[in-house]
Amino acid sequence: MGAVKTKRMPRAVREQQMLDAAVQIFGQRGYIAASMDDIAELAGVSKPLVYLYLNSKDDLFTACIRREAQALFAAVRAGVRRELPADRQLWDGLLAFFTHTAEHPDGWSVLHLQARTHGEAFAAEVTAMRADIVAFVTQLIAEAARSAHRDPDLPEREVAGFAEALVGAAESLADWANATPGVTARQAAATLMNFAWAGLGELMAGRRWSPPGA
Amino acid sequence: MGAVKTKRMPRAVREQQMLDAAVQIFGQRGYIAASMDDIAELAGVSKPLVYLYLNSKDDLFTACIRREAQALFAAVRAGVRRELPADRQLWDGLLAFFTHTAEHPDGWSVLHLQARTHGEAFAAEVTAMRADIVAFVTQLIAEAARSAHRDPDLPEREVAGFAEALVGAAESLADWANATPGVTARQAAATLMNFAWAGLGELMAGRRWSPPGA
Repeated sequence: MGAVKTKRMPRAVREQQMLDAAVQIFGQRGYIAASMDDIAELAGVSKPLVYLYLNSKDDLFTACIRREAQALFAAVRAGVRRELPADRQLWDGLLAFFTHTAEHPDGWSVLHLQARTHGEAFAAEVTAMRADIVAFVTQLIAEAARSAHRDPDLPEREVAGFAEALVGAAESLADWANATPGVTARQAAATLMNFAWAGLGELMAGRRWSPPGA
Repeated sequence: MGAVKTKRMPRAVREQQMLDAAVQIFGQRGYIAASMDDIAELAGVSKPLVYLYLNSKDDLFTACIRREAQALFAAVRAGVRRELPADRQLWDGLLAFFTHTAEHPDGWSVLHLQARTHGEAFAAEVTAMRADIVAFVTQLIAEAARSAHRDPDLPEREVAGFAEALVGAAESLADWANATPGVTARQAAATLMNFAWAGLGELMAGRRWSPPGA
């Protein structure tokens, strides 16, 4: 019955197994060095079946990017509870982000390194996901500013800039944390929180840093 | 005499003209769409001369990456005067960075978008430059922490994390500033300074953000 069950495995389940294998191989070896033979072997299926389901190496890679992007964004969204105070929302979001990237280093490598290194089409997939995350963070910061009753002091454009800064900093730190032995997700999140929140926190309290000569 | 002068132009000068043209074409059209014909025409030289001097499209692109990376790093280093207070050093460095990326949008596109999108060899060139900038920023932050007499509170690893966060935030904001009409270099620098310095400033003053349950 086990064999029958395996044969009857739904296509969707098989595809996820292929994507699991592909993310691991793409993430660890890089897009160019990854072979469809190795991906099929790791997934426990024949190479023709991989081509039948996912069509080509490019399409398989694109499917990996989309799945990993959705999983990362879903993890961050699920980590944030909008009813909590702003600093707690930011902390929970950062912790969810660094926990996900630490637990899925191959997925993060596919998203942040491989997808951006191998052509404009793949890079565009990641750019779209990143825009969603920036929009989400922008909304969080804008709401925090509103709840601190300081809207007039934080114009929309500056909030957009903070969101870009925070996302860029988080991406950079995730690479660093995954490449530096002994740095935990919690430490990476605390580092960015101490860097960013005390800064944003001062701003929410109306204390700005002023440039010389301003 | 003008014609003779042109013919006698030293190779180094001709090469810089070719690189100027190449950075503009690569930055604006992308690595793949850029043609050696267009680069030669914009540089006012023959295509064979471009190949004679720079060997291939790949070598020309690599030369562009190296030149633009060195120019950006030199601009940041020149902007920082180490005898000034830490916040002033950070402000001057950020202003120099955003001024350079705003004045050389094609160079920034070559470094931060094109070089990372078209293969591992080009990406490695940028990674090396980025590591130099992170090391420079790490040193600045470590010295600021020392001058604030708070070393024991800012362990080496956390300083390294702050440097990664700051560089990632700056990269992200430079893309955003160059893509957003009306955002000046000074505004981008002030946004990051308000985001980062008030945060680092609080830390230097020994005021940490504490995670829940810590």
